[in-house]
Amino acid sequence: MLTIVVDAMGGDNAPACVVDGTLEALRESGNRFEILLIGQEEKVSPFLKQHDTADLNLRFMHAPEVVTMEDVPATAVKTKQDSSLVRGLKLCKEGLAHAYVSAGNTGAQMAASLFVLGRIPGVLRPTIYAYFPRIGEGLTNIVDVGANVDCKPENLVQFAEMLTIYQRYAANIEKPLTGLLNIGEEEGKGPEYLKQAYRLLQEADREKKINFIGNIEGHDILAGKATIVVCDGLVGNTILKFGESIPHFLGSLFKPELEKLVLSGQLDPGAAALTGKAFKALFEPFDVEKFGGVPFLGVDGISIVGHGRSSSRAIKNMIYMAEHMIEQRVNERIAEMLS
Amino acid sequence: MLTIVVDAMGGDNAPACVVDGTLEALRESGNRFEILLIGQEEKVSPFLKQHDTADLNLRFMHAPEVVTMEDVPATAVKTKQDSSLVRGLKLCKEGLAHAYVSAGNTGAQMAASLFVLGRIPGVLRPTIYAYFPRIGEGLTNIVDVGANVDCKPENLVQFAEMLTIYQRYAANIEKPLTGLLNIGEEEGKGPEYLKQAYRLLQEADREKKINFIGNIEGHDILAGKATIVVCDGLVGNTILKFGESIPHFLGSLFKPELEKLVLSGQLDPGAAALTGKAFKALFEPFDVEKFGGVPFLGVDGISIVGHGRSSSRAIKNMIYMAEHMIEQRVNERIAEMLS
Repeated sequence: MLTIVVDAMGGDNAPACVVDGTLEALRESGNRFEILLIGQEEKVSPFLKQHDTADLNLRFMHAPEVVTMEDVPATAVKTKQDSSLVRGLKLCKEGLAHAYVSAGNTGAQMAASLFVLGRIPGVLRPTIYAYFPRIGEGLTNIVDVGANVDCKPENLVQFAEMLTIYQRYAANIEKPLTGLLNIGEEEGKGPEYLKQAYRLLQEADREKKINFIGNIEGHDILAGKATIVVCDGLVGNTILKFGESIPHFLGSLFKPELEKLVLSGQLDPGAAALTGKAFKALFEPFDVEKFGGVPFLGVDGISIVGHGRSSSRAIKNMIYMAEHMIEQRVNERIAEMLS
Repeated sequence: MLTIVVDAMGGDNAPACVVDGTLEALRESGNRFEILLIGQEEKVSPFLKQHDTADLNLRFMHAPEVVTMEDVPATAVKTKQDSSLVRGLKLCKEGLAHAYVSAGNTGAQMAASLFVLGRIPGVLRPTIYAYFPRIGEGLTNIVDVGANVDCKPENLVQFAEMLTIYQRYAANIEKPLTGLLNIGEEEGKGPEYLKQAYRLLQEADREKKINFIGNIEGHDILAGKATIVVCDGLVGNTILKFGESIPHFLGSLFKPELEKLVLSGQLDPGAAALTGKAFKALFEPFDVEKFGGVPFLGVDGISIVGHGRSSSRAIKNMIYMAEHMIEQRVNERIAEMLS
C-alpha cells in the first residue's frame, strides 16, 4: 500500500485544514492509501481528537520543529533537521513513504526536496510550474515560475519534456502542446537563449518527446494556444504574480461603478449584488492554488507543494495527485525519457 | 516656430485619422506650431481637400513609398528610402523639422530612427516604454517593452534615467519612482544581471538621477508602487501583451454569465446592459494606446510612435507630446545627465 506523508504544519490554516483534508481523502477513497501525518504533536492532536479516526489508514508522527513562511529556504533545511519538512522528505528518501505533500514554505520545500531527494538521473534542474486559466476547457501550465532564473536552453527543453509527461499521464491531457514564450511568433525572434531553445524544442518534437507549436506571445497564454508555456523563471513568476493581482485591481474599479449606478437610481441594489457576484466568480479560475498544488518536477521522489492558503479540498486533491503520480510512474517515465 | 512632421500613411485608419488629428491639433492650439504632413499625394489629398486648411500652419510633402505593417524593420529602412518614414526622419536630421510622429510600423520606425537620427551621446541603447493602468491616479510606465532583449545592467539603469527625465519634465510627475521588476523584493534576488542592476540603480539614486524604490514584483505593477517599472524587453513585452489580452478573456466569461442571469429571469435585460457597459468601461485604462503614443527614448531627435489603431485624438496627443518634448528640452537633459 502507498504511504503518503502529509505535513500537518504547512499552510495558513494548518493544522486544521490539513487534518480535515487528510481525513476527507481517506474517507472518500475508502482508505486506498495510508497517510502519515507529521507535525508538532501538541498542535495537531487537539484537531485529530475531534474526529473518530479509528477506522482510517492514518498514522501520526511527531516532528518538534516547524519551518515557517519566514524561514530562509537554504538555511531552513540545514538548521531545522527535526522539522516536519525535513523529516517527512527523509521518510520518502529512505523508502518508508512514497510521497510528501505540504502547503508550507515553497522555497524551503524546493530546497529541502533537492537536498534530501536529489534529482532524477539526467535532470539538469528541477522546476515548478503554475496553473493559468484559459478560454475554453482545461488549464494552461506555465513553467518555470520562479525556481530557476537564468535558464539555459537545455533547461527550458527539459521543463517542456517533464511537463509533457506529467500532463500526458497524470493530468489526462491527450496531446500536450508546448509553446515557447517569446516577443514574437516568428522563428529567430528574441534573445539568443530562446533562439537556441527553439531549435532544441524542434528536435524534441521530432523525437516525439513533446509537441512543439513554436513561439507564442503574452496574449496567447489566456487564449489557450498551448497547454505548456515554457519560459525563464523570471518571466513566469512575473506573469503569475501579475495575473494574481488582476482580480483585486478590477474589483477595486468595478465595485464603485456598481455603487454609482445604484446611487443614481439606474440599477436596483438586488441587480447590482447579482452582477457583482457574477463578476467575482470570473476570477475563480485565477485562484487555482486554492484547489490543488503542484509537484516539483525533476526531483527524485514525489514532493507536492500547495499555496499557503490551501483549503482542505486543496490538501485532499494534493494527496490524490501524489497517488496518481506514483501509480502513473511519472518520475520513472521522466528518467526513461532523459536516459 | 516648431515644425512637426506627421506621417500621413501610418496607422490602420490612415490617412483619414491622421489628417483629422493633424487639423485638430492646429486648430485647437491656434497654429502654435507648423505641421508638415508627409505621404502619398494621391492617397492624402482627397482627405485634405475635404477641409478648409487655408488658415492653418500646414504644409504637405509627397513621399512616393510607404512602409507597411508587414515590412521587416531592418530592411524597410534600406529599401524604402523614399517612404514617408525615412524622408520624414531625414527632415529632422537635417534640421528642417523638429520632430516626427507616426502610428505606423513600430519596429521599422525604431530601426529608421536609430539609423537616421542616431543616439544621444552617452546612450547605450534607445528604448521604448508602454503605459499601464494603476490603482489610484496616473499611469505607470514599463520600460523596456520589446526594443531590447538581453539587456545589460547598464541598459536598465539608463532606461530608468531617461524615463525619469521624461516623466519629470514632459509628463508632470513630480517624483518619478523607479522599481526593478524581479522575482522577489529583497536585495540579492533574481538573476545576476538584475542583482548588478540593483546596485547600479542604487548608485543612480545616490547621484539623484532617479528615485529608486528597490525590487518590485509582478503584482506591484497594477498596485502602482512605481511610476517606472524597469525590466528586460522580453519581460516587458510579455506583460504588455498579456495585459492586453485580459479584457477579451474576461469579457468572454462575463457576457455569458449576464446572459444566463437574464435568461433565468434573475436579472432584467436593462440592468444586464448597464452592468455590461460598466464592465467594458473597466478596461479602457488598458487601452491607453488609443489615446497617445510614446517617444523612442535615447534617439538623437524626437520620434514618436503610436499604436496602429490610433484615433485622431491619439494623433493630436502625439503632436502635443512632440511639442512638449522639444520645449522641455528632454533630449538635451538626457544628454546632460549622461555626459
